[in-house]
Amino acid sequence: MSATQAKRTVALIGGEFSGGQPKGGVERAPKMMRQAKIVDQVKALGYEVNDCGDHAFPSPDAANSSADPPAGIVKNPRTVGNACKQIYDIVQAAVKRDEIVYTIGGDHSLGLATVGGHAASRPNLCCIWVDAHADINTAETTGSGNMHGMPVSILLGLQKPQDIPGFEWFNPVMTTADIVYIGLRDLDEGERSIIRKFGMKAFTMHHVDKYGIGQVVQMALDHVNPKRDRPIHLSFDVDALDPAIAPSTGTTVRGGLTFREGHYICEAVYETGLLRGLDIMEVNPALGNHREVAETIAIGCSLTRCALGETLL
Amino acid sequence: MSATQAKRTVALIGGEFSGGQPKGGVERAPKMMRQAKIVDQVKALGYEVNDCGDHAFPSPDAANSSADPPAGIVKNPRTVGNACKQIYDIVQAAVKRDEIVYTIGGDHSLGLATVGGHAASRPNLCCIWVDAHADINTAETTGSGNMHGMPVSILLGLQKPQDIPGFEWFNPVMTTADIVYIGLRDLDEGERSIIRKFGMKAFTMHHVDKYGIGQVVQMALDHVNPKRDRPIHLSFDVDALDPAIAPSTGTTVRGGLTFREGHYICEAVYETGLLRGLDIMEVNPALGNHREVAETIAIGCSLTRCALGETLL
Amino acid sequence: MSATQAKRTVALIGGEFSGGQPKGGVERAPKMMRQAKIVDQVKALGYEVNDCGDHAFPSPDAANSSADPPAGIVKNPRTVGNACKQIYDIVQAAVKRDEIVYTIGGDHSLGLATVGGHAASRPNLCCIWVDAHADINTAETTGSGNMHGMPVSILLGLQKPQDIPGFEWFNPVMTTADIVYIGLRDLDEGERSIIRKFGMKAFTMHHVDKYGIGQVVQMALDHVNPKRDRPIHLSFDVDALDPAIAPSTGTTVRGGLTFREGHYICEAVYETGLLRGLDIMEVNPALGNHREVAETIAIGCSLTRCALGETLL
Ligand SMILES: [Mn+2]
Ligand SMILES: [Mn+2]
Ligand SMILES: [Mn+2]
Ligand SMILES: [Mn+2]
Ligand SMILES: [Mn+2]
Ligand SMILES: [Mn+2]
Repeated sequence: MSATQAKRTVALIGGEFSGGQPKGGVERAPKMMRQAKIVDQVKALGYEVNDCGDHAFPSPDAANSSADPPAGIVKNPRTVGNACKQIYDIVQAAVKRDEIVYTIGGDHSLGLATVGGHAASRPNLCCIWVDAHADINTAETTGSGNMHGMPVSILLGLQKPQDIPGFEWFNPVMTTADIVYIGLRDLDEGERSIIRKFGMKAFTMHHVDKYGIGQVVQMALDHVNPKRDRPIHLSFDVDALDPAIAPSTGTTVRGGLTFREGHYICEAVYETGLLRGLDIMEVNPALGNHREVAETIAIGCSLTRCALGETLL
Repeated sequence: MSATQAKRTVALIGGEFSGGQPKGGVERAPKMMRQAKIVDQVKALGYEVNDCGDHAFPSPDAANSSADPPAGIVKNPRTVGNACKQIYDIVQAAVKRDEIVYTIGGDHSLGLATVGGHAASRPNLCCIWVDAHADINTAETTGSGNMHGMPVSILLGLQKPQDIPGFEWFNPVMTTADIVYIGLRDLDEGERSIIRKFGMKAFTMHHVDKYGIGQVVQMALDHVNPKRDRPIHLSFDVDALDPAIAPSTGTTVRGGLTFREGHYICEAVYETGLLRGLDIMEVNPALGNHREVAETIAIGCSLTRCALGETLL
Repeated sequence: MSATQAKRTVALIGGEFSGGQPKGGVERAPKMMRQAKIVDQVKALGYEVNDCGDHAFPSPDAANSSADPPAGIVKNPRTVGNACKQIYDIVQAAVKRDEIVYTIGGDHSLGLATVGGHAASRPNLCCIWVDAHADINTAETTGSGNMHGMPVSILLGLQKPQDIPGFEWFNPVMTTADIVYIGLRDLDEGERSIIRKFGMKAFTMHHVDKYGIGQVVQMALDHVNPKRDRPIHLSFDVDALDPAIAPSTGTTVRGGLTFREGHYICEAVYETGLLRGLDIMEVNPALGNHREVAETIAIGCSLTRCALGETLL
């Protein structure tokens, strides 16, 4: 197992948060993944698990909305900012203990906290963002005001955190060259402009079709990690997968990654021996029928196992 | 956008015709695609749309069949020939105005009219025929007598138009070297013989599996358009797609192109900057349940948008 | 047809056997494939068919279990051994007549008989084992005791046949270098150890994703058949296919070969001109609804046709 990483402790963090988008239920994914025995599965791969617990946050509906009015059209900014700060601190502390940080969302607005908190403690970090969406809207470009479509812009400082109430505490340390996308297929025009303007590397489904997933992962790694010496954070939004295989998520888009391609990405990142952070985000057990929910949760678990070293052979 | 074409006017032509095959309903696709807002979608990509209207033709059942007896076993020859002549003239006129001709079928017998009318006005045209079938039967090789399986043979003069009543007006100008197939998987023995005899280039599903769709499109372009300087007509029969994703069509065959591969072809042809003609054929809203019809029509629209420049990034 | 094989006689052998695993019904596949007109289909490809008949064996439930007690946890050893011996003799005789041996299972424990009987008469034989599973457990590593998970280990002598009652007659002549796997995705830890220990070549679904099926088949052939001069036995367990396309089989595993990839393998092996043995195993008409059974049987037939020379073009 020359190229694989020494087994470390995995810090498991549940982010019971749905405030970055309007659909309730996504906050229940950490508990559902636990019921599906994700902890035992991680341990069975040879890791110690440092269970950092599930962290619940008041849903914006339940909160006094007058306490968190929109900033422009950006919804629930302080609620999202507060949740992110708490997860950020937990992630940062785990990284300082040299643990692999593994976060189960919750919606993808927490990606700011997981990747950002990771980068704060581990210099030279790069990020692979697997998603149907670029999540790189700013307060100016967003059409919906849902913050799960904005974490990357704040993470990279393209959206100044100081300009969104609740995010004043955040200090961007990553740049547009430190992140690479895989799986994009539904972008807003403003997001396209940002990606082009900064020359960001993005492998859309068009590229997956053109080159095959094997080459795409290699090209993605070659971009952010040409010498294969940088630690990697893999932030996986399950809506990157085709809705036929991961239906229980809030913003499905046709033409996504196959079951096999999704797992291939995780396996290939594991093989680098450099994975230090993993997010499984946007599983929403409130969407879809019983079978669909079970399948989506099972995929959340199997993606996790592949990223942590489960191999076919 | 260096490699992409300057935005032109798109001539939209509806071919409400089902006489080239036995299943009613395919003549309703143009109206259904319009209801799905295909005109607005094309305009949203920056094109002027010259709406040439939907052209209805009497269905063979309703016509006095004694006026159009079979020629050998070829069914409805004069009815098909008449419909083709009318669409041919409309296409030819639009091409003379330097418009991109975009035809919504109707059955694929109209491919004779769209590619033929296009080639009559635009020398050096090449054609990419995306289909589960080769549509290259002659009056001698056809087993069914359905003319939607014959347009390519007449188009290339392999079947003399003079020998089929109703087609005396047609003058073949393209040769077997000017066309390339993608997606074939259901051929008659006579069609195989023709393709072999003339050394025609055909990428079957076997080749898509062997090389991947990215390489297949490149090889197809290298064959008919090695210098990337010839205008391209893309004639897309939706039965090229797998029945699981485009079920509402008359002659489904398992093992077809995926959703992503179908769109990839359109995107890659657009990227050449050379697309001047597009057909979306054989959508049949009378086949399948409500969801299946809606999905097939949606794919007709999204294939169109991709061929006209909609990109993921 | 330079690279294709001269048409020979196909010896058709039905193995009505389910004793290598616990689910009844798999013994009915030969009759169902015959009802689906597999004999006519093979003849239509230009072969003579030497119909060796369907061979029924008492199911272990019906047999007096006291006559065949488990050997350790290995179930029904004498029953399986006896069935294998009978099929082995039939296969061996057919190969001596220089026929292509085509066996319809029955469960995959018969793979010992088909590949073993073939190798006994045709030196230099190599084998391509297409399966979700490696079927290489020994009496020591098996967790279930089901012998359909063990044929490869006996075939290669990794499990001494003398140590399993009912298999004393078997003489291993193939080695770990003579076989290559395609499609693996569900292995027991003991199987992984064996494969690693002997440096066996196995292309898992990870490799299919990484390289594409086209390259995988080429690499598999390069391994067992670098000069393309060895006769080939293709043992195809339909559970190698994704359950979405071949649901009626006893041990389904997600993330399998697509319809197209499965057929591609058969087509590519045919193209070598070297196929001399074919097994279609583990179709179980007792599992799944009517449509699922019909589809799985249809795939058993179409895989057969592709392996015997049906081409798209
Ligand atoms: Mn996301
Ligand atoms: Mn997303
Ligand atoms: Mn067709
Ligand atoms: Mn057609
Ligand atoms: Mn097997
Ligand atoms: Mn199997």
